[in-house]
Amino acid sequence: MEGDPALRLRVFDLNCWAIRYLSKRRQERIRLIGDRLCQEGFDLVLLQEVWSERDYSDLKAKLGGCCPYSHYFRSGVIGSGLCIFSKFPILDTLLYQYSLNGYPYMLQHGDWFCGKSVGLAVINISGIVFNVYVTHLHAEYCREKDAYLPHRVVQAWELLQFIRHTAKAADVVLLGGDLNMHPQDVGIRLLRCWTGLRDAFTETKHFEGCEDGCTLIPNNCFTVTSELQPFPLGIRIDYILYKAGSGFMVRCEELQTTTGTAPGMDIPYSDHEAVMATLHVQRMGQAAGVTPSTAVPALVEVLSEARTEVRVGLQAARRQRYSSGRMALLALLLLLLQAAAALGALAGLAEGQPFPKLSFALLAFLALGVLLLATGLHLFHTIEVKMLQGTEEQMRMALGVLQERPGRS
Amino acid sequence: MEGDPALRLRVFDLNCWAIRYLSKRRQERIRLIGDRLCQEGFDLVLLQEVWSERDYSDLKAKLGGCCPYSHYFRSGVIGSGLCIFSKFPILDTLLYQYSLNGYPYMLQHGDWFCGKSVGLAVINISGIVFNVYVTHLHAEYCREKDAYLPHRVVQAWELLQFIRHTAKAADVVLLGGDLNMHPQDVGIRLLRCWTGLRDAFTETKHFEGCEDGCTLIPNNCFTVTSELQPFPLGIRIDYILYKAGSGFMVRCEELQTTTGTAPGMDIPYSDHEAVMATLHVQRMGQAAGVTPSTAVPALVEVLSEARTEVRVGLQAARRQRYSSGRMALLALLLLLLQAAAALGALAGLAEGQPFPKLSFALLAFLALGVLLLATGLHLFHTIEVKMLQGTEEQMRMALGVLQERPGRS
Repeated sequence: MEGDPALRLRVFDLNCWAIRYLSKRRQERIRLIGDRLCQEGFDLVLLQEVWSERDYSDLKAKLGGCCPYSHYFRSGVIGSGLCIFSKFPILDTLLYQYSLNGYPYMLQHGDWFCGKSVGLAVINISGIVFNVYVTHLHAEYCREKDAYLPHRVVQAWELLQFIRHTAKAADVVLLGGDLNMHPQDVGIRLLRCWTGLRDAFTETKHFEGCEDGCTLIPNNCFTVTSELQPFPLGIRIDYILYKAGSGFMVRCEELQTTTGTAPGMDIPYSDHEAVMATLHVQRMGQAAGVTPSTAVPALVEVLSEARTEVRVGLQAARRQRYSSGRMALLALLLLLLQAAAALGALAGLAEGQPFPKLSFALLAFLALGVLLLATGLHLFHTIEVKMLQGTEEQMRMALGVLQERPGRS
Repeated sequence: MEGDPALRLRVFDLNCWAIRYLSKRRQERIRLIGDRLCQEGFDLVLLQEVWSERDYSDLKAKLGGCCPYSHYFRSGVIGSGLCIFSKFPILDTLLYQYSLNGYPYMLQHGDWFCGKSVGLAVINISGIVFNVYVTHLHAEYCREKDAYLPHRVVQAWELLQFIRHTAKAADVVLLGGDLNMHPQDVGIRLLRCWTGLRDAFTETKHFEGCEDGCTLIPNNCFTVTSELQPFPLGIRIDYILYKAGSGFMVRCEELQTTTGTAPGMDIPYSDHEAVMATLHVQRMGQAAGVTPSTAVPALVEVLSEARTEVRVGLQAARRQRYSSGRMALLALLLLLLQAAAALGALAGLAEGQPFPKLSFALLAFLALGVLLLATGLHLFHTIEVKMLQGTEEQMRMALGVLQERPGRS
């Protein structure tokens, strides 16, 4: 009811960069993160890149007093890296794995192996239903020539569709995570326009932390400074977004980020900065509190832009599907030729032995290896084409539905 | 408002068995299905196993007059096989791919390659929001020793979770598909208990078709009669399920199945029988129409039973992960030994040549092949273990939430 005392909610979000054997001073940093969370007593903690279940268990044991409820979202070989800690009981969870997530052969990037996903936890706080989402999208390794942009746009689309379809009965929607997108990138504009989610950084009354709210900053000793060269202040790619359902109002009272080194220590918590928001949630009259919808022309514009990116990706995927298919065919042809030559030699058609046996066997194994590899790649790019086509079609359908709606400005 | 004229909705569901090169008389049957759909003018058509996009396009062209709106759900290498045709505009779609779906090395069963999923289409009919789901779960190849039961239970769990989370704002929920479960199987009881979905066959006022509503019958010339030997009447594994949201009432007035051969032809439409339901949807007073919730003890019982099946699967998956890991290790050891022997020979430690070169190279390639294969299997079973663990944990959480709820009888 209107006039109810506001609910004050403190939310913590961090990409923990906790990759076993690879991340520097991992266990020490996980301990530091746990200590900070215990001291500050957040209501909701959304973490990414907690790849080791052992680290999750350590955090769980440490946070047992302040955030006794938690969930670790499992997916893929390595996991999703996503987990959530809460002061209030988690009633239900659901995981949605993105259909595209980079390429298995880009071993140096490794995103493909992670089973990148969005996790949903339904939490009831003082009778208010919160749909809390935590996610981590594909990294951007080269902004000028970003080969993963179409995959990230597909992920943003799947994320917004998942939120739209699952949050219809929620009183408050919260999304935290490393979106790997700058605030003006097409994916995040698409996400915000279509879900009505608001960015805590732009909405907050009071901000304290890195300039421009950056969460990847040059003076964090774990960041690769060369990657941040075009951005002297750093970049903002970690977000807390929120939206109130019908009959509710959410305001961001305060937003903070960490600023490199942890207090009293010589290292930061992670290569990312944490984002910490204090939200006020208030129950309003029945009709109030709904986030105003974005105007149709703006929706059409951002969706068309995203669709163009997906189409560019589709063309590239088709080319790669074609060349891997051709390579597989050539390898098969070589194998067949070898088989014919071997049969010919066995049948005594050729004079003597046409090739030294060892080179012949090595060549055959090489051809077999190429055949298997190229076939695998061809299947992979076939899936990629299908998923990009599927997204393109869904976007087309959404544009059609929009254009039939009476225009609002 | 109460007293509104009822909406009459005719729904058609069929597993089309349209596998390119493998299914008998496929194109002829797709033509027959299209003809029947055109003649009868269904409002909603839910199809499974339409694996070829060409078949989908043919159906789309044929149904352009009666069901002008349609969607083909893409996923996996071969696709999901799912599609939907509708007389009314499809506003939105979403696809959820099940996390487990059999084994890639069970080539003779092939389910793994299909990207089995559940598709959702949101359709607005006369101001009533319908969430229409179409799905196809993993097949059961041997009822006595069903190795896929844990995967099917995980799929049933993911299906019900997906429906519960996405259908909260729907006025009417409809699910059609080949669930590959008999009416009393744990997966379907779990699905029905937790979603409140009602089975059109048990609820209908008037039924016409195969005895007991069977959809896989011995006198369909395409079924493998040996598989149906323990069930002389056949089995019922294709369903139309429905549920009314708050303020609505849904009744099944009539349910029909096809009965083998298509009228005037010498072949049936598919190896499955089609299920056709006539539903009446009525707007009621605000509070009426909600499906009564299942009693807590019944929910606990079916969930515990399902959890046991998942645990059995978890044990098997752990064993397979262990043995594939051991195999990979042995192959690696053999490779290392060979490398040591080869280096030894090169360094002139051994007298002469220890092995004939060709056998040596062949053995090395064999070991490499086994290493790659076993590593792949190990990774696969690691994912399987993770997903089974994740489901088991979700089920445990659900049981916890249930047990804290005040009991209802």
